[in-house]
Amino acid sequence: MRYARIPDQTIRRLPLYLRALFLMAEQGQTEVSSKDLSEHVGVHAWQVRKDFSFFGEFGRPGVGYQVSWLTDQIKTILRLDSEKKAVLVGVGNLGAAVLSFSGFNKYNLTIIAAFDADVNKIGQTVGGVEIRDVACLDSVGELNATLAVITVPGQVAQAVVDPLVNVGIRGILNFTSCRLIVPDQIRVTNIDIGMDLASLPYYI
Amino acid sequence: MRYARIPDQTIRRLPLYLRALFLMAEQGQTEVSSKDLSEHVGVHAWQVRKDFSFFGEFGRPGVGYQVSWLTDQIKTILRLDSEKKAVLVGVGNLGAAVLSFSGFNKYNLTIIAAFDADVNKIGQTVGGVEIRDVACLDSVGELNATLAVITVPGQVAQAVVDPLVNVGIRGILNFTSCRLIVPDQIRVTNIDIGMDLASLPYYI
Repeated sequence: MRYARIPDQTIRRLPLYLRALFLMAEQGQTEVSSKDLSEHVGVHAWQVRKDFSFFGEFGRPGVGYQVSWLTDQIKTILRLDSEKKAVLVGVGNLGAAVLSFSGFNKYNLTIIAAFDADVNKIGQTVGGVEIRDVACLDSVGELNATLAVITVPGQVAQAVVDPLVNVGIRGILNFTSCRLIVPDQIRVTNIDIGMDLASLPYYI
Repeated sequence: MRYARIPDQTIRRLPLYLRALFLMAEQGQTEVSSKDLSEHVGVHAWQVRKDFSFFGEFGRPGVGYQVSWLTDQIKTILRLDSEKKAVLVGVGNLGAAVLSFSGFNKYNLTIIAAFDADVNKIGQTVGGVEIRDVACLDSVGELNATLAVITVPGQVAQAVVDPLVNVGIRGILNFTSCRLIVPDQIRVTNIDIGMDLASLPYYI
């Protein structure tokens, strides 16, 4: 099935729907209304129906959408229907927390290697992942990883990103406050905890 | 000045503009075009101009916006023009990383207290913040904190949120995968690293 017409705004909401659907599945829920999903995601119910109409799912009146079917559709669109491999660079507190995070599996994501510059950490295992020498970032090319999580100090972020891009990393989750410079075809998502917390006072 | 007419979608983008403006200020930039801002935030330049027109700023043709003036305007709208106090509950790897994060100050946010259940951690200091006994969450009421960062294991998240809401916490940054149940007037932002990483494969 082709989904070429799906607008970017809808694509951006799909991960939010997916997270909500995972929560519902965990609670044993098999069907969901657009209204229920809209409350999870923070949009209007009509927006939910419109978003899903782009991939040919219109829901059944009075019943709604089937949780498992909808989950599979969204995973396919987001290219999460096959395993995607990630590496992590920087095993400080934040990096260790990410490595220990158990929520990647359901998205078909696996962190397969971690890197750090600290000789005391190299060879250790955190969250089941062995820590390697950051001087060997070139080896990522042999791992078939396409994603990287950057949890190093800001001042060395660009220096670890450049070799990663050279060996095939195409998507980056950047936890540093640095703006990374990457080729156009590389996708970077910046995480800023300060900004997330700063979004709250307006509403309270 | 009143900003009552600003749409929610614009409000959601303001923290993104603010982060971009902070980066520009750090690099010594004093003026910025809507096009430059649009590239930082990932919207069209016309959207930037429309967003800022809601608070009466139209920019100067060929020059753009003044970085410091725009920063102040956005901080005022987001109610970041006075200090907001936060507490953090759960000083594991992730909690320790948040406490050590230096990026809250520029948003006028301060984490003033941290709480944990581990007797070995209570009394220790992480990121300049003393760790207190989670059994004493009631004491948050005396601290004039309105925000809380939740970095506990998911299964105890609701149990720490309930007392926080009772003593005046009104905005919550939730790092657990649990959906928190709170009164309508309490604002919760859910952080899901898995979802953030899962958003990337579509684009790469």
